[in-house]
Amino acid sequence: MRIEKVLIVDPIKGEFTGDVIIENERIKEVIPVDYEKYEQILMPGFVDYHTHSLKGIDTMHAKKEDFEKWANMNFEYGVTSFFPTTVSASKTQILSVIKNLENVGESIDGLHLEGPFINEEKKGAQNPAYIRNPTIEELEEITPEMVKLISMAPERQNFKEALNYLKTKKVRVSIGHSSAGYEIYKDAFKNGVDRITHFPNALSAFHHREIGGTGSALLFDFKVEIIADGIHSVPEFIELTYKIKGADKIILITDSMEAAGLEDGQYELGGLPVTVKEGVARLKSGSIAGSTLLFDKGVRNFKKFTNCTLQDLAKVSSYNAAVDCGIKDIGRIENGYYANIVLLDKDLNVLKTIFKGKEVYNK
Amino acid sequence: MRIEKVLIVDPIKGEFTGDVIIENERIKEVIPVDYEKYEQILMPGFVDYHTHSLKGIDTMHAKKEDFEKWANMNFEYGVTSFFPTTVSASKTQILSVIKNLENVGESIDGLHLEGPFINEEKKGAQNPAYIRNPTIEELEEITPEMVKLISMAPERQNFKEALNYLKTKKVRVSIGHSSAGYEIYKDAFKNGVDRITHFPNALSAFHHREIGGTGSALLFDFKVEIIADGIHSVPEFIELTYKIKGADKIILITDSMEAAGLEDGQYELGGLPVTVKEGVARLKSGSIAGSTLLFDKGVRNFKKFTNCTLQDLAKVSSYNAAVDCGIKDIGRIENGYYANIVLLDKDLNVLKTIFKGKEVYNK
Repeated sequence: MRIEKVLIVDPIKGEFTGDVIIENERIKEVIPVDYEKYEQILMPGFVDYHTHSLKGIDTMHAKKEDFEKWANMNFEYGVTSFFPTTVSASKTQILSVIKNLENVGESIDGLHLEGPFINEEKKGAQNPAYIRNPTIEELEEITPEMVKLISMAPERQNFKEALNYLKTKKVRVSIGHSSAGYEIYKDAFKNGVDRITHFPNALSAFHHREIGGTGSALLFDFKVEIIADGIHSVPEFIELTYKIKGADKIILITDSMEAAGLEDGQYELGGLPVTVKEGVARLKSGSIAGSTLLFDKGVRNFKKFTNCTLQDLAKVSSYNAAVDCGIKDIGRIENGYYANIVLLDKDLNVLKTIFKGKEVYNK
Repeated sequence: MRIEKVLIVDPIKGEFTGDVIIENERIKEVIPVDYEKYEQILMPGFVDYHTHSLKGIDTMHAKKEDFEKWANMNFEYGVTSFFPTTVSASKTQILSVIKNLENVGESIDGLHLEGPFINEEKKGAQNPAYIRNPTIEELEEITPEMVKLISMAPERQNFKEALNYLKTKKVRVSIGHSSAGYEIYKDAFKNGVDRITHFPNALSAFHHREIGGTGSALLFDFKVEIIADGIHSVPEFIELTYKIKGADKIILITDSMEAAGLEDGQYELGGLPVTVKEGVARLKSGSIAGSTLLFDKGVRNFKKFTNCTLQDLAKVSSYNAAVDCGIKDIGRIENGYYANIVLLDKDLNVLKTIFKGKEVYNK
C-alpha cells in the first residue's frame, strides 16, 4: 500500500509532505516529497490509555466479543491502541475483567486499573464500597502481564511497598483520586512516580499556602493525562497546562463512560447510576462521572485550546502515551513502526484509519 | 571611589569578577578582571515599590522628616529606591500623604497608591469604609507626577476610563485586591494591563473550571509582585511561579507594615488594629495584614526557594521594578547608571550600601 501526497506528521521528525509505503503490518518507508499542495494529514493512530467504555460496552462487564467490537468501533475515532480501564471493584470482579480480556489482542495493548487503591475523599464517580489499601498479595493476583498501568493514591497505607513491587513487574503507577499535598508528591516523585491520572480532576486543589496535587503536578516533572472535553477543565486551564508542561508531558485520554457515542439518558459507571445531559455525565451528587468524549474530538479540542503545532498534537495523542507505558513500535510515522495510521482532513476529521497495514475505517 | 575584587552581578551582563569606579553620583566604569577569589558580591541597590511602613513610620501618617528617616533606615537592608505605599483612605488623607512627600527626594522614587479602587470582597487588610469606584475627577487630584503606580481592581465601575486616563499620565496600573476571573483578566491584558500586585494574595483562586486571577496571572504575560516571606505564599508556590514566569516577570516587594524591623506586638494598618505574632501580622479576622519582611531577607529567601542565579536575583530585586515603572538610570551595574549599590557577603547579608556614590550604610 502506498499513501501519496499527504502531510506526514511525526512526533519526532515533525511535519513534511510525502508518501508512505506500507508492507504487511508495518511502515516500510517514509518518503519526503516536496508537494506544493496536500489534502490529507497523516498522523500516528491515536492511543487512549484511559477509557472505561464506548457505546454501552463497559470494561467491567464486557465479554471477549464485546472487547473486539469496541476495538473495531474505536477505529472510527482514529484510535488504534487503547487500554480498557476498570473502576474500583472487588478482587473477584477485577479478575473477571482480566479473564474476559485474555487473548483479545486487536488494538487492545493492555489493561488500566483505575482504583481500587485510591482515596475515598476524592472518589469522584468511584464506588466507595470497593476502595481499599493495596496489599502485595492482592497485587500479585490482579497484575498479570496485561496490566500496564494502575492509578493509585500515594497517601494509601502500603503505597511504597506496592510501588516497589509494581516496579519489578513493570506496571506503571499513576497518581489519581488522591487528597495528597505537596510533601507526599515530592516524596512520590523522588521515588520515581512521574505520572498523573486525569489531571487535575480528583486531586487536591492549588492554593498559595498548600500547592496541593494540582500545584505539585505542575511544579515537578510529572506527565499528566488530560481530558480535553472543555468540561473536566476549561480550555484556558488546558492552555495553561500546555504552556507550563509543554507537549512532551501531556497524554490525551477520553476517560469515556458507556454513554460515549450514544444519546443523553440514564447509564451507569461501576454500579452507580449516571445521568447524561447535553453530553455531561453526572452522579446524583453532581460529581462528573467520566466523559462522553470521543478521542478525535479531544484531539481537535486540544488543538483549538492550545493552538499547538501538529507535531505537538501527535505527541499528546499517541507517542507520549505509548512511550510512557513502554508499548513498542507504535506512535510514529517512521520506517519499521506498525502501520497504525489515521488520515485526517485539514479540520482534523477522521477520513480513514489503518491498523497494522489494513484499512479498518473509511468515512 | 573604586571597589575592587568583587563579584559584579548585573541583571543584563550577568556575573563576573572585577572592579567598579564611581565618580560623583554615578558608575564611571565597570572593569572586568579575572580574579581567582572574591569575598564580596556587588549588586544593584534593591528596589521596593510596595512598602507601607518601616519601624513604626507609616506612609499614611509620615511627615517629611519621617520619610527621610525611613529612607535612611532602608539602607541597612540594601534598599536604595522605594515607593511608600498608601492603603485605601479618604481623598483628603491621600492628598495629605502627597503633600507630606513633596520634595522629599532621597531614595524615594515615587508613591504607590494601593486602593482605594479595589474590591471589598478581596479587601484583605484594607479598610472597607474607604473602598470606592474611580472617577476621572478624583484621579486628576490624587495622581500628581510623584504617583507612579496604582493598584486597582479591574472589575470596578469606570475601570476602563480610569485606565485610559492613567495611561496618558504614565501612571502604571497593577491589578490587586480583585475578585475578577479569567474573562476580565483577558480583557485587561488586551488593554495593556500587565502587572499584578502581591501575587497571588487577594486575587481569586485557581480552579480547573475557572482559572481565576491566580491562573490568569500565570497564563497571560503579566509581571507579578512577590512577597518572598514564605508566609504570604509557601516556598514551593514561589518556586512554581519562578518556573512558569521566569526571572523577567517577577518583582520582589516587602508589602511591609509598621512592625517591620520591630518586635511582635500591637500595631495598626490603615486605621485597623493588627497583632504581630512571630513576625506574622494579622487582623482580628485572621487576615494577613501586610508583612514584617525586610527586603534583604526577601532576597535571601527568593534565592533559597528557587535556587536561581545571582543574575536572576538582580532582575527580581531591582532591575525589573525600575524598568516596569519607567524609573531611569537605576538597577544596573553599568557605566553611567547611578551608583546605587549593595555589597553583600556570600550568604547575601548586606555589608555596605552606596547611594548615589556615597556610602550610606556600613555593617
